[in-house]
Amino acid sequence: MRLKAIISYKGTSYFGYQVQDNEITIQGEIEKVLKRIFSKDITIYSSGRTDRGVHALGQVIHFDVDDDINIDKLKWSINSLLPLDIHFITLERVEEDFHARYSVKNKTYLYKLNIGEYNPIEHDLVTQDYHKYDINKILEAMKLFLGAHNFYNFCSNNEGDFKRNILDFTLNTNENYLTFSIKGNGFRRYMVRMIIGTILAYSINKISLEEIKLMLEGKGNRTRFKAPSEGLYLYKVEYGGIDND
Amino acid sequence: MRLKAIISYKGTSYFGYQVQDNEITIQGEIEKVLKRIFSKDITIYSSGRTDRGVHALGQVIHFDVDDDINIDKLKWSINSLLPLDIHFITLERVEEDFHARYSVKNKTYLYKLNIGEYNPIEHDLVTQDYHKYDINKILEAMKLFLGAHNFYNFCSNNEGDFKRNILDFTLNTNENYLTFSIKGNGFRRYMVRMIIGTILAYSINKISLEEIKLMLEGKGNRTRFKAPSEGLYLYKVEYGGIDND
Repeated sequence: MRLKAIISYKGTSYFGYQVQDNEITIQGEIEKVLKRIFSKDITIYSSGRTDRGVHALGQVIHFDVDDDINIDKLKWSINSLLPLDIHFITLERVEEDFHARYSVKNKTYLYKLNIGEYNPIEHDLVTQDYHKYDINKILEAMKLFLGAHNFYNFCSNNEGDFKRNILDFTLNTNENYLTFSIKGNGFRRYMVRMIIGTILAYSINKISLEEIKLMLEGKGNRTRFKAPSEGLYLYKVEYGGIDND
Repeated sequence: MRLKAIISYKGTSYFGYQVQDNEITIQGEIEKVLKRIFSKDITIYSSGRTDRGVHALGQVIHFDVDDDINIDKLKWSINSLLPLDIHFITLERVEEDFHARYSVKNKTYLYKLNIGEYNPIEHDLVTQDYHKYDINKILEAMKLFLGAHNFYNFCSNNEGDFKRNILDFTLNTNENYLTFSIKGNGFRRYMVRMIIGTILAYSINKISLEEIKLMLEGKGNRTRFKAPSEGLYLYKVEYGGIDND
């Protein structure tokens, strides 16, 4: 049977989500635990990789196990064997045609910025920045990204389709914290960090609105701005049809 | 001249505050930075040690430097040389008779507990607990600790004065988070964690109110309950007289 899990993790100590030779990764740690439980290799499939240092509050994975498994006990076993910074929030049976990556309808990322006094307690959980940002300029630039665009200039990929649709993009300000929430039908590599980096750069006059507009048409140069990984969280993955969350 | 600093740190990676041979400590890291800046040994004095894994949002230290130092530049230098998980929030000149430890009037600690879904993002910042606590029983037990008591049964020390005065003790509940705030004229080793541990034990009927009352008179046995270090924060240190914050 096919199982779907919503998982959360702190990315700081890992070389990203995806398995790599000789590196400790999120996928690698989970597959190690599954191998220990089932005494055989089980491959897990995620909604997409997250990069080194990036966190997840609602990453989704799927994998297949024999039909006679007790799912609640399995979830308990997995969580008791996983490192403290990786956690299975839910584990449930889904239809065989569910695929964590191919069935994705949209994804939401959060980006957290502290523009006040540095707080060492959360040095790997929030991006620290001392610039005096103009919130109105941030909001002005955010609007440009809404809707469908060619995001070639806001990713590191060189092949494939660069068209993505940004469905929602909001900013929450709470004392010295800025939290961006961006929802889209998909994101290419570094896309969220490059969007946030470019918007912040506009807010301190390092790039113009006209340049950004041009870049969103796939013209001009790729952005020079990429916000650091520690403030980025994969917040939620939504699925269409019967697998809808 | 004498300098007073308010500092914050994440205790997870350190063997506690106080310098120890062959161990990485908060005090050791700060003194290493001062030695690098001044090319000589400078001893720092704190309001008191914090144990391994315990955090600080407002620890206070003092140390002496030559009169011609530019304090703002010094603070900037220190912060740029310190590890990411230790930070000087303020640095200011104080009277020569100020002493970070001996001038203390009172201290406030926070204790953070997550009784909901485990969150791996903050596994070293909040204590996770799955017990179904009775908030009314927690509040009932907290009241016993207010005022002056003999805290022999709530510490690990064997000598000295065990009388301490608890000035304020509150509980903030926010969704699945319980945050205790306890203010006293001083705390002995493990005292906050033992008080919290004992109150939580009462809430799930592992100890009676009568036992706790007896223990607070210095009678009966020492408590068997000590809450883990990761939820404990030294929040604030207040000073009397002219050095008042």
